[in-house]
Amino acid sequence: MTLTTKLDGGRERPACPSCTYIHYGDFSIGCAGVVVRDGKALLVQRGQNPFAGSWQIPGGYAEHDEPLSEAVEREVLEESGIEARVRDVIAFRHSLGGSLGGPSTNIYVIFRLESLGGEPRFDGDEIANAGFFSLDEMTRMDAVQGLSRWAIEKALAAEDHHGLAPDTNGPGGGRPGWQLFGVRAVYSLDG
Amino acid sequence: MTLTTKLDGGRERPACPSCTYIHYGDFSIGCAGVVVRDGKALLVQRGQNPFAGSWQIPGGYAEHDEPLSEAVEREVLEESGIEARVRDVIAFRHSLGGSLGGPSTNIYVIFRLESLGGEPRFDGDEIANAGFFSLDEMTRMDAVQGLSRWAIEKALAAEDHHGLAPDTNGPGGGRPGWQLFGVRAVYSLDG
Repeated sequence: MTLTTKLDGGRERPACPSCTYIHYGDFSIGCAGVVVRDGKALLVQRGQNPFAGSWQIPGGYAEHDEPLSEAVEREVLEESGIEARVRDVIAFRHSLGGSLGGPSTNIYVIFRLESLGGEPRFDGDEIANAGFFSLDEMTRMDAVQGLSRWAIEKALAAEDHHGLAPDTNGPGGGRPGWQLFGVRAVYSLDG
Repeated sequence: MTLTTKLDGGRERPACPSCTYIHYGDFSIGCAGVVVRDGKALLVQRGQNPFAGSWQIPGGYAEHDEPLSEAVEREVLEESGIEARVRDVIAFRHSLGGSLGGPSTNIYVIFRLESLGGEPRFDGDEIANAGFFSLDEMTRMDAVQGLSRWAIEKALAAEDHHGLAPDTNGPGGGRPGWQLFGVRAVYSLDG
């Protein structure tokens, strides 16, 4: 079946002539984690191109049927062998398709996680190395990805109540398939 | 061309047999805004089904080529006639495809905005009414959407430095097509 176009929301968009499908663009959702332990953060070193040798926080794409907090815990475990638990969200990036090399318009959510213990393990292929480093140590390393460094500075400097925290008390917050993250109000509405 | 399947990332996925296209699932990105003025927040009343008559914060989908902060300012203006400027992000929701009625896995980012003045205007068709209301007034209204009320409580209670703020100083933060939002560290790294 060949797509035709349909006017929707003020634009002509690719659409199926026989069903209700309208193509709004290619989107994807990614995640990454700053895993904190004793004032240091976890970095993994890429073993393959692009950017073989560079250090970054672990992360990757979320599956379409995977809650984001599970996705980031899975990526951290897969890339570093570290079991970690999500504490909060400290940043996210929105990038339009093509602006960062990828074809899709992407939201990339950066979590802060707490290490549950253990030492890094890695496959030596996709991941060449992994370890916990202080900001001082990172300054003396080659090729630490700029966004990773920026996110680690945020995560180490922010107080515990400053990120957007998972909220299971929100409306539908505990519903399967739906996760809410919001600011924590330090002072109650009643003063 | 009919899609076949390809093993990628541990799963069989729909893929084009002749190019590199792999279908990872349907994703979309939405946005909404809590527009604050004098301790009240802007609500719009839906004029059409589903949920005709219910009140909610203005919002909608972001285009694939539209920065998120522009998308939410556009949606607020279209639905309420109010010009407003993004201050920070106070929450986001991640919902898996099918869990909220929509087919796509969605990130819905809720911004806090400041009204630049003016009174609400609306079309009387898609939007039946609009206005600024206090939390007390909302308690006496019928059918205020639960997530909107939750977000307004967050926005009114959170201090100014608690949301994730646009960061044009981050790596690539000011690059066209790339927006970064992160926690504001109240205390510097140097103490």
